[in-house]
Amino acid sequence: MEDFSKLCLHTFTNKPWNLSQCIDNYSKAGIKGISIWRNVLEGLDLKIVKKQLAEADLSIVSLVRGGFFPSVNASERALAIEDNMKLIEEAAVLGAPLIVLVCGSDGRQSLETSREQIQEGIEKLLPLAIENGVKLAIEPLHPMYAGDKSAVNTLAQANDMVEAINSPYVGVAIDVYHVWWDPNLEVEIRRCGQNNSLFAFHICDWNVPTLDFLTDRGLMGDGCIPIKKIRSWVEEAGFSGFNEVEIFSDKYWAMDQNEYLDKIKLAYLKHS
Amino acid sequence: MEDFSKLCLHTFTNKPWNLSQCIDNYSKAGIKGISIWRNVLEGLDLKIVKKQLAEADLSIVSLVRGGFFPSVNASERALAIEDNMKLIEEAAVLGAPLIVLVCGSDGRQSLETSREQIQEGIEKLLPLAIENGVKLAIEPLHPMYAGDKSAVNTLAQANDMVEAINSPYVGVAIDVYHVWWDPNLEVEIRRCGQNNSLFAFHICDWNVPTLDFLTDRGLMGDGCIPIKKIRSWVEEAGFSGFNEVEIFSDKYWAMDQNEYLDKIKLAYLKHS
Repeated sequence: MEDFSKLCLHTFTNKPWNLSQCIDNYSKAGIKGISIWRNVLEGLDLKIVKKQLAEADLSIVSLVRGGFFPSVNASERALAIEDNMKLIEEAAVLGAPLIVLVCGSDGRQSLETSREQIQEGIEKLLPLAIENGVKLAIEPLHPMYAGDKSAVNTLAQANDMVEAINSPYVGVAIDVYHVWWDPNLEVEIRRCGQNNSLFAFHICDWNVPTLDFLTDRGLMGDGCIPIKKIRSWVEEAGFSGFNEVEIFSDKYWAMDQNEYLDKIKLAYLKHS
Repeated sequence: MEDFSKLCLHTFTNKPWNLSQCIDNYSKAGIKGISIWRNVLEGLDLKIVKKQLAEADLSIVSLVRGGFFPSVNASERALAIEDNMKLIEEAAVLGAPLIVLVCGSDGRQSLETSREQIQEGIEKLLPLAIENGVKLAIEPLHPMYAGDKSAVNTLAQANDMVEAINSPYVGVAIDVYHVWWDPNLEVEIRRCGQNNSLFAFHICDWNVPTLDFLTDRGLMGDGCIPIKKIRSWVEEAGFSGFNEVEIFSDKYWAMDQNEYLDKIKLAYLKHS
């Protein structure tokens, strides 16, 4: 009954922990998947990390996060490409099959221009991604991030870009937090299914009210997102991968992280 | 050159002022339109307010704000209808041609249910609105308010509802703050034009970064909204009404409000 075989945690969900603590505690808790944020890898030997993951019987689901392609400055755009290339190489060493892209946006230029630069950036990365067997997932971000974090704000836009690029190495990551409000969500999830492009599924909840733009996400069940319904659409579209818990929350980061892990497991069973 | 004949201010933009101060200062500043928020009317004789507006040569553009229809409790929904009816009567006494609807959302139920209750609420108000010659404008709110303030989050949804209700007394209010990110915006503005349903146009800017969900709006030119472009679409769709400045901003509320008014006039000429 208590099936955690598809449960994955993002290391940032347990921000107070370093990577070893995440690996140890997830493993003890019977969790099978981990999505690793770049910050916890700093200064570590990635080959040793790969070994630790194998010993802990943890699948690395994705490396988070690449992207941030747009800028009014060509030199900044070039730097972003370099940085993403480094990330692809890191993913390859770790054995991570996927990089999640937070595509970026530059408020000093139009959203259309930012979107062109995003597509251009992904196309520049594609040969290296294919060479390394690392897939790239475009994550549409909530419209409240359109000014600075992503000019791709609906699943329709992400699907359009995936179809334009047209490579089996480029798909989408759906995070319920970003898309739950969208009246076209069900239709666009079906479209992902038809494209075989649904690479990742992230869960959390939307607090009512929400107090902060970044660090007030809810645990499943805390808020108003119909997570089970969205998960059913995702699974009907053929997705059978991990359910990745990605929660940025000052409130939960202040808790004992092992107690929090127990709460996450319960919430996962009950509300997702 | 300095044409302020289409400039309207929302009283909430100058929150530190009471209604008399708004009327006096707008009039002295050569502003021709005022949208009155309900809070500044408390305790006032509306017939006297109407006279003050006429003497100041100020057109009342809209009364703000009605709506908030959805609730899981039928008794709360009934109270909302009563309150909106009172508002329609107030608008009639003031001579306000329009009420802006912030439609509401209840996170305890689905967005679909909230939308049904919104449409039902508007249809209940319609006879009284027609009787009083007061139009109702559905204002799509940014998706970041979907959990608590409005289940109508795109102009497409507002247009759908306007077409479903199908009355010349029900249209939309477009606030650039809520819709600027929407890839379908131009198309949906054209649709408003075809429906003769574009009743109001609100301007402000989106700060990058934005620090607060409610009170960190920018003055035109502060942020990343392509206001001139959106205004051109609105005017191409046949809109010839006021440009209403609606800015909630702790930063600007802390300023001397007459200096702020000068800034608004300059920003209006330069950035909208």
